[in-house]
Amino acid sequence: MSAREKAVVLLSGGMDSCVTTAIANETHLLALLHASYGQRTESRERRAFEEIAEFYGVREKLVARLDALGEIGGSALTDEGIRIPENLRGGSTDIPVTYVPFRNAHFLSVAVSWAEVIGATAIFIGAVSEDSSGYPDCRPEYYHVFSELVRVGTRPETRIEICTPVIHMRKSEIVRRGMELKAPLEHSWSCYQGQEEACGVCDSCRLRLRAFAEAGYADPIAYRAPVAR
Amino acid sequence: MSAREKAVVLLSGGMDSCVTTAIANETHLLALLHASYGQRTESRERRAFEEIAEFYGVREKLVARLDALGEIGGSALTDEGIRIPENLRGGSTDIPVTYVPFRNAHFLSVAVSWAEVIGATAIFIGAVSEDSSGYPDCRPEYYHVFSELVRVGTRPETRIEICTPVIHMRKSEIVRRGMELKAPLEHSWSCYQGQEEACGVCDSCRLRLRAFAEAGYADPIAYRAPVAR
Repeated sequence: MSAREKAVVLLSGGMDSCVTTAIANETHLLALLHASYGQRTESRERRAFEEIAEFYGVREKLVARLDALGEIGGSALTDEGIRIPENLRGGSTDIPVTYVPFRNAHFLSVAVSWAEVIGATAIFIGAVSEDSSGYPDCRPEYYHVFSELVRVGTRPETRIEICTPVIHMRKSEIVRRGMELKAPLEHSWSCYQGQEEACGVCDSCRLRLRAFAEAGYADPIAYRAPVAR
Repeated sequence: MSAREKAVVLLSGGMDSCVTTAIANETHLLALLHASYGQRTESRERRAFEEIAEFYGVREKLVARLDALGEIGGSALTDEGIRIPENLRGGSTDIPVTYVPFRNAHFLSVAVSWAEVIGATAIFIGAVSEDSSGYPDCRPEYYHVFSELVRVGTRPETRIEICTPVIHMRKSEIVRRGMELKAPLEHSWSCYQGQEEACGVCDSCRLRLRAFAEAGYADPIAYRAPVAR
């Protein structure tokens, strides 16, 4: 019997969560959680989730349907009427149109409930604060407060640590860490537009491509258009 | 045009949320949110929600399906294999078997996302701390931390107050306040067991009946067995 404790890892199927899974795998038994909330690329993300889970041989999986997030809308990720931008924001501190209001609280709530029932002592989430999105629910302060919420909102004997191992990393560092840990980045998916091949031009693709370029690696996934690497 | 601001009210259909709705209705325009999460009495609770919404003439309604809570289980409310107790706990501080792990965070997350999209500035929840359940996510401290989470986890311009107007009330005070405000308690539903008539013996029925008795009112809903009132 393993002495390792169990961790719930939030795995969207993107690059950050793929590397976060690899990091959690170094120290914990994995229980993988994916959220389906009416996002544009759900079926493609779900495939990435399943492939990464298979890569790590994880049997304890949960796919949570959060239909309310899609019904509520208010984001380009869940509302077809809002266009995904094709340009990186400059130094803007504006909240991007892909912000899904209070989304990560939904994910973390499912993670905490599941962790409490299956006896996991940690939750890993691949939130990135710097060099990234501008989403308010990706900042360290947010996870600090959420940890406090878990402490006051669960059974007295429950101990669940919220782990954000890539939160302070630049995207290029995440790529390097993933390469070091042999994370299955070839199974990860970041594009907001494509299905079989990534578009290479949406905000998420550009961030990913720039990260691989800065890290000095070729991105192993296929792109629709020729892209600078 | 009304100068009133909009509030999202979490309305399970129980007595506490019914009175909380009546309190919110004094100061705000109502947007009513109900959660369906595989709880035993969902269809009956949903009927109570719809009847209370109709009583107040509310058109802005959202029924959120939180299937993951049912799939995760771990509570007598969502798992048929765990029996609902028929006795009030004495002075025990144990967490009851009807505790649904971290449930209220799911509800509040939906409420915050919806509030941010529809421009509501308050969320009302009928949590009761004293004289009640022993649930960790019904304590004032929990709502204090959740308010902080909303502050750090939403757009900078978003202002949403979490209101818990009955949290310090005894159940009998909640009945009295509901009577003063002419809350439609005849449409509310508290029983964990019944469908058409309340059982009168489960934990929730006993708390409710005792509250009405202490407040000096007859409970307007029907009970299966003759009960002391």
